[in-house]
Amino acid sequence: MAQEKWVTKITKIGKGEIRMRGYDIKEIMEKLSFGGAVFLLLKGELPTEAEAKMMEAILTSSIDHGVTPPSSFASRLVISGGNPLNAAVAGGVLTIGDSHGGAIEQCARILQQWAKKEGEVKSLGESLVEDFVSKKKRIPGFGHRLHQTDPRTVKLFEIAQKLKFSGRHMDLAKAVESELEKQMSKRLPINVDGAIGAVISDMGFDWRLGKGFFIISRVPGLIAHAYEEWTTQRPMRKIAELDYEYGGAEEKKIPNG
Amino acid sequence: MAQEKWVTKITKIGKGEIRMRGYDIKEIMEKLSFGGAVFLLLKGELPTEAEAKMMEAILTSSIDHGVTPPSSFASRLVISGGNPLNAAVAGGVLTIGDSHGGAIEQCARILQQWAKKEGEVKSLGESLVEDFVSKKKRIPGFGHRLHQTDPRTVKLFEIAQKLKFSGRHMDLAKAVESELEKQMSKRLPINVDGAIGAVISDMGFDWRLGKGFFIISRVPGLIAHAYEEWTTQRPMRKIAELDYEYGGAEEKKIPNG
Amino acid sequence: MAQEKWVTKITKIGKGEIRMRGYDIKEIMEKLSFGGAVFLLLKGELPTEAEAKMMEAILTSSIDHGVTPPSSFASRLVISGGNPLNAAVAGGVLTIGDSHGGAIEQCARILQQWAKKEGEVKSLGESLVEDFVSKKKRIPGFGHRLHQTDPRTVKLFEIAQKLKFSGRHMDLAKAVESELEKQMSKRLPINVDGAIGAVISDMGFDWRLGKGFFIISRVPGLIAHAYEEWTTQRPMRKIAELDYEYGGAEEKKIPNG
Amino acid sequence: MAQEKWVTKITKIGKGEIRMRGYDIKEIMEKLSFGGAVFLLLKGELPTEAEAKMMEAILTSSIDHGVTPPSSFASRLVISGGNPLNAAVAGGVLTIGDSHGGAIEQCARILQQWAKKEGEVKSLGESLVEDFVSKKKRIPGFGHRLHQTDPRTVKLFEIAQKLKFSGRHMDLAKAVESELEKQMSKRLPINVDGAIGAVISDMGFDWRLGKGFFIISRVPGLIAHAYEEWTTQRPMRKIAELDYEYGGAEEKKIPNG
Repeated sequence: MAQEKWVTKITKIGKGEIRMRGYDIKEIMEKLSFGGAVFLLLKGELPTEAEAKMMEAILTSSIDHGVTPPSSFASRLVISGGNPLNAAVAGGVLTIGDSHGGAIEQCARILQQWAKKEGEVKSLGESLVEDFVSKKKRIPGFGHRLHQTDPRTVKLFEIAQKLKFSGRHMDLAKAVESELEKQMSKRLPINVDGAIGAVISDMGFDWRLGKGFFIISRVPGLIAHAYEEWTTQRPMRKIAELDYEYGGAEEKKIPNG
Repeated sequence: MAQEKWVTKITKIGKGEIRMRGYDIKEIMEKLSFGGAVFLLLKGELPTEAEAKMMEAILTSSIDHGVTPPSSFASRLVISGGNPLNAAVAGGVLTIGDSHGGAIEQCARILQQWAKKEGEVKSLGESLVEDFVSKKKRIPGFGHRLHQTDPRTVKLFEIAQKLKFSGRHMDLAKAVESELEKQMSKRLPINVDGAIGAVISDMGFDWRLGKGFFIISRVPGLIAHAYEEWTTQRPMRKIAELDYEYGGAEEKKIPNG
Repeated sequence: MAQEKWVTKITKIGKGEIRMRGYDIKEIMEKLSFGGAVFLLLKGELPTEAEAKMMEAILTSSIDHGVTPPSSFASRLVISGGNPLNAAVAGGVLTIGDSHGGAIEQCARILQQWAKKEGEVKSLGESLVEDFVSKKKRIPGFGHRLHQTDPRTVKLFEIAQKLKFSGRHMDLAKAVESELEKQMSKRLPINVDGAIGAVISDMGFDWRLGKGFFIISRVPGLIAHAYEEWTTQRPMRKIAELDYEYGGAEEKKIPNG
Repeated sequence: MAQEKWVTKITKIGKGEIRMRGYDIKEIMEKLSFGGAVFLLLKGELPTEAEAKMMEAILTSSIDHGVTPPSSFASRLVISGGNPLNAAVAGGVLTIGDSHGGAIEQCARILQQWAKKEGEVKSLGESLVEDFVSKKKRIPGFGHRLHQTDPRTVKLFEIAQKLKFSGRHMDLAKAVESELEKQMSKRLPINVDGAIGAVISDMGFDWRLGKGFFIISRVPGLIAHAYEEWTTQRPMRKIAELDYEYGGAEEKKIPNG
């Protein structure tokens, strides 16, 4: 076969050696947190301390949202049918599309496209909203079927500001939010997808990785739901037609380290 | 419908409020790392500092293993067929079964079953290996198709010892490793699946969560491969029949913090 | 690479030529029905007229079962999240496990294992049921969460008898059904999974293909549900918490050809 | 909950009764072939004899294409990792995207959009190709990575003509094929995806069902490959780096019924 070899730049594997983006896995395991390693893997370079912290906050923000999202339901349905845990996770991940979690991708794409243009953020936001409203299209990343103000957005922006990651994309997202309220006479708050889309854009990530951040974040939640279904419910029950209620731990506070 | 409500103990959702295992998501985002939040989610309690560190090391250990594992290949095939990122991740996660990554589950199950028995770890290991050898069955978590000594196992056990997580399950795993060499006259080293199986058992996790740790850890790797395929290769190329080579960053060291 | 080539026996591909199990695809398209082609593909030989008819009945029996099965729900959830049709089908197929459709595999395995033994079918059925009842295990393929008598089983057995496919496996399945009623004092009728498991066993198929027949049969149903969801409902609606009702065509009869 | 019930028009389920599109499943099993039942399910009405035959030919055409397509590979990788048959099918179905099989959807969409316009088919074909060539976009459904002339296209069009299903969409597809050769000085023959896209359009199916026909057709092939891998190869072998060869049945002919 005289064909040229195709090239991967991610990880080099040898007998007894694993090097990701040039770094020995043993050193990575010792010196980086998982969030930091994800940054290195996806960006190709070591995170600064601020970047590592921002990453942890992004990944932590969407780790679970209870049993209501389609992804939790699908994971429960798969394990309930008598399948292994990995199939349940795959089933859940499959629901994460443009209308569920996937908005990060489309929101980041739009923000990156518009933030490149010249001009004040405020007037860019005005034009962006006008453009979408005139075409009767929704802007991905704004509005939530439950939360009026998404607590994760608030906290994510607060952390981003403290860590100095708030840049042109986040400003544009905020401008869009207030323009939407003005032009639509309706509050469509930045949801957590939109917030993550803005923050990863300010951190320099390609929008095509957008859904990836949500998936990494939510997979543990899917595992928790599949495991709860597996270990506490009988197979093939009518999950969908019964109501559920929360019966877990009471409200608690994390003690200061 | 007079049917009773079914109960979830994971996350409580209200308008503008998300509480996981009793803790406010805003506080979790501020005070926990992602690894720490995964611990809280799956265990139902806050991690100690040592538990949080151990968790980071477990999750970091398996984050990527290059293009050779079936999971990387499957993710590349799915995106190459013209599908979204989440479908690529799902395709990769589907390959993670008893023979790939899934050994954590089976290894942890066996270790948890045998460690409960009375007696010295050394003699338990002897009986365990005799039992499997006599039935001509492989013990999951031992042996690797590439590594003679899995560097991730070495580092994971080193960290576990330092953090005082090495307990009866890890000792049993080591006893099994040396018994295997004695009885089979062949070195079948504890691979990273076996090592994670032992460590999570010493940390008190149910074996049924075993595959979950590998999935959480490897999903970022699948995203990296799908993204590389998406952004650098043409659709529907004959991935499988071409050789590849590593063409990424040179060897580097992580500077001391 | 001096490694030996691995062998496939299914289909030979050349420029402008496709031969499945030795037969030209053009001839297959002209002379076989889809059910007949499935038989050729999975069995490696042309079906007799009776085998082709039996195959059509098996595949037709499970083509759809409305919105209640986990598989229909999962397919709807995936497309509702904003994903392509193939992802929706995959999500639905993932729920088909040992407790949903997958019983064909386990039922066929048990029937094939017991039918090989010497003795009268009646006494084999007695021993089989005793064995499972004493171990407090359910026999896969018996009982249905909705139907007292599964109409598909009745029709499938009727067609099998007419076509002379009723053999030792089907007799054993019936013996198990009446023994279950005797020993459990409870009616656990052969469901459609059990019926297909018995018929494919009498047709000489390996039990490991069991789930395959259900999957081939049900995939069109999953497509119909995903398509209905896609074209008539809004994305991310709360599918699971709303009741549904049938609003389609009135009862009709198929005119005699 | 005072919310209105949502409506499904596909199948009505009652105790002991299953009615698809109004017809009793028992009658469907007795009087329709599987291809005919698929037609009824997706179209909502009984097929004529010609429609049933056309359906069989469409579904049969793409039933398998050997081990080279991404879908066969992915199914093998999933089962090779130690997973159940349904997960293998799901993994294969996930690869079926815009660049693999999915072209049916996009090709049918384009043909349906252009065939609605006024004018001669020949000049519509000219404009359509000009439009795509000027935008440097590929027209989905034309060209194949292996076949110069796709034998399945030839046979499908021949059968369609005989059954009188060749209409405006098929004519437009042929006009596009010859225009492509004229304007691009390169032969990009209608592949089987394009052919199916044209035929289902002439049969009155919505383009959004396009991928569905390919999925129904190919699922048996995926099962055959997963089963062959499962029963003849060892788990976790390096499928991707070894060459394969066909070692099945010799060339045969189907005897005339």
